[in-house]
Amino acid sequence: MTSSAAAPSRFETVAIVGVGLIGGSLGGALRRKKLARVIGVGRNAGRLEAARQAGVIDEAARDIRDAAARADLIVFCTPVDRIAADAREAASVSRKGTLLTDAGSVKGPICDALASGLPDGITFIGSHPLAGSEKQGFEHSNPQLYEGRVCVITPLPHSPRGEVARLRHFWEAVGSRVIELSPVDHDRALAQTSHVPHVVAAALAATLDRDCAPLAASGFRDTTRIAGGDPDLWVAILLENAEAVLASLKKYENVLGAFTSAVGSRDAESLRQLLAEARDRRESLRPSGFPAGHIVQ
Amino acid sequence: MTSSAAAPSRFETVAIVGVGLIGGSLGGALRRKKLARVIGVGRNAGRLEAARQAGVIDEAARDIRDAAARADLIVFCTPVDRIAADAREAASVSRKGTLLTDAGSVKGPICDALASGLPDGITFIGSHPLAGSEKQGFEHSNPQLYEGRVCVITPLPHSPRGEVARLRHFWEAVGSRVIELSPVDHDRALAQTSHVPHVVAAALAATLDRDCAPLAASGFRDTTRIAGGDPDLWVAILLENAEAVLASLKKYENVLGAFTSAVGSRDAESLRQLLAEARDRRESLRPSGFPAGHIVQ
Repeated sequence: MTSSAAAPSRFETVAIVGVGLIGGSLGGALRRKKLARVIGVGRNAGRLEAARQAGVIDEAARDIRDAAARADLIVFCTPVDRIAADAREAASVSRKGTLLTDAGSVKGPICDALASGLPDGITFIGSHPLAGSEKQGFEHSNPQLYEGRVCVITPLPHSPRGEVARLRHFWEAVGSRVIELSPVDHDRALAQTSHVPHVVAAALAATLDRDCAPLAASGFRDTTRIAGGDPDLWVAILLENAEAVLASLKKYENVLGAFTSAVGSRDAESLRQLLAEARDRRESLRPSGFPAGHIVQ
Repeated sequence: MTSSAAAPSRFETVAIVGVGLIGGSLGGALRRKKLARVIGVGRNAGRLEAARQAGVIDEAARDIRDAAARADLIVFCTPVDRIAADAREAASVSRKGTLLTDAGSVKGPICDALASGLPDGITFIGSHPLAGSEKQGFEHSNPQLYEGRVCVITPLPHSPRGEVARLRHFWEAVGSRVIELSPVDHDRALAQTSHVPHVVAAALAATLDRDCAPLAASGFRDTTRIAGGDPDLWVAILLENAEAVLASLKKYENVLGAFTSAVGSRDAESLRQLLAEARDRRESLRPSGFPAGHIVQ
């Protein structure tokens, strides 16, 4: 055992279900900081063993129940449409006092599904660390991925406050700054800051004629970088958060329409105002993603 | 004099009109490689002197005619709606054999305006080095900015081939890979690879609710980075290339509409296909912007 009751994570054994970029980075951070013993859970024995040899987990488990029965904290880093079912299965064999959380980009459906029906003494509270990449696989993991990043946690009104505090301390221990939001507020915000940007970038990438590719410079590449993400993961995210995504897309299309109208009518003054407003909003983002004075703690 | 007739640029004295990020980087490259003596032209004497002290130009000239009368090559790095007028003024005092070019992001209107009416022996050929940044000012210039980047040149059918060759060699001497296109083909391609991406990014940035800013992570920041560009410069670019921009925006809006429909009807299979196509197009871009085998020389 590499941690003690005094360690900030307050979890002796952490099971990570899904050891890819997100799960692998978390495992690496926990191990490097000696915060917990890490059991990695996955379906592919070869990949799990490679992750163990790479040092991102202490132990590989192919059976989620085997790991769940021994863990104090279980973090589901699987696609958003699989998390609730995986969590139910794990909860069925977990010890009393075990905390379950996840790293999914959508929170409402997952938190709703797990709001009730778990065994007594087993708590699920949603998490969403705002860290990641269009890349996949533990090979791209980074034990410092969570340093200085925001992690949203989404307790429900009935979530035990002691468990909320433990979860907050867990993410803080790997370097994150924790923001508490309701699942609905999280999903509405992320539609705007992540899910619609993904659609916008993907639509732009899909619009590129192949013979124009040599003329795509760094601006095009930056604007479409996130379109390199895994299609299956993003289908799940966009459909799990469809309502909020559609509302945000509508808003985006309206703003885009204003730009189109200004260009169409050669209205330089309107166009300048639209561009200036865009620049101001963009510049209000500090490099870390935190505008000054907006840190919610 | 720091160059000779044998130097690859084949220009002894180069005047750069507009010593910002683009002009300053060019001046720095020419000076570092000892390709030419560089006269910087600008309206602000203090800024020009600072640029001289920073080593990006050899000499500062506030009067475009003074510089033009002594230059073998004049490069206009001013906003696209000012280039044609500046070039006419310079041409009126240039020596026979002087070549004029620019660095503007739109080529049709400029090349049309300068296709005829210049004094005998003075040639204008458009250039567009695909290098830049949302930043401004010579302080952000970089003498290696053009290394490995594409530079499009847009000669007209009647452009003297010897002058085309000199211009090509000039850009190659600062490290660029030169692509020759007609002004119309350039503008149509750049609408798609640069101008519409700017609108798309700006509209996305403008859609961000300020209270969601803490939840904007690296994906949002990358997708909107170019929205930090100068509004006045972009009004000029978008309006000078309005027809091609509107055509490309229309195409983009159609693709975006397909994504919206797929989310709206919860059509996972269509959404997956759209996302997969987007990812494939994105991944076909090599880091330098060159897909393998697509280099047009």
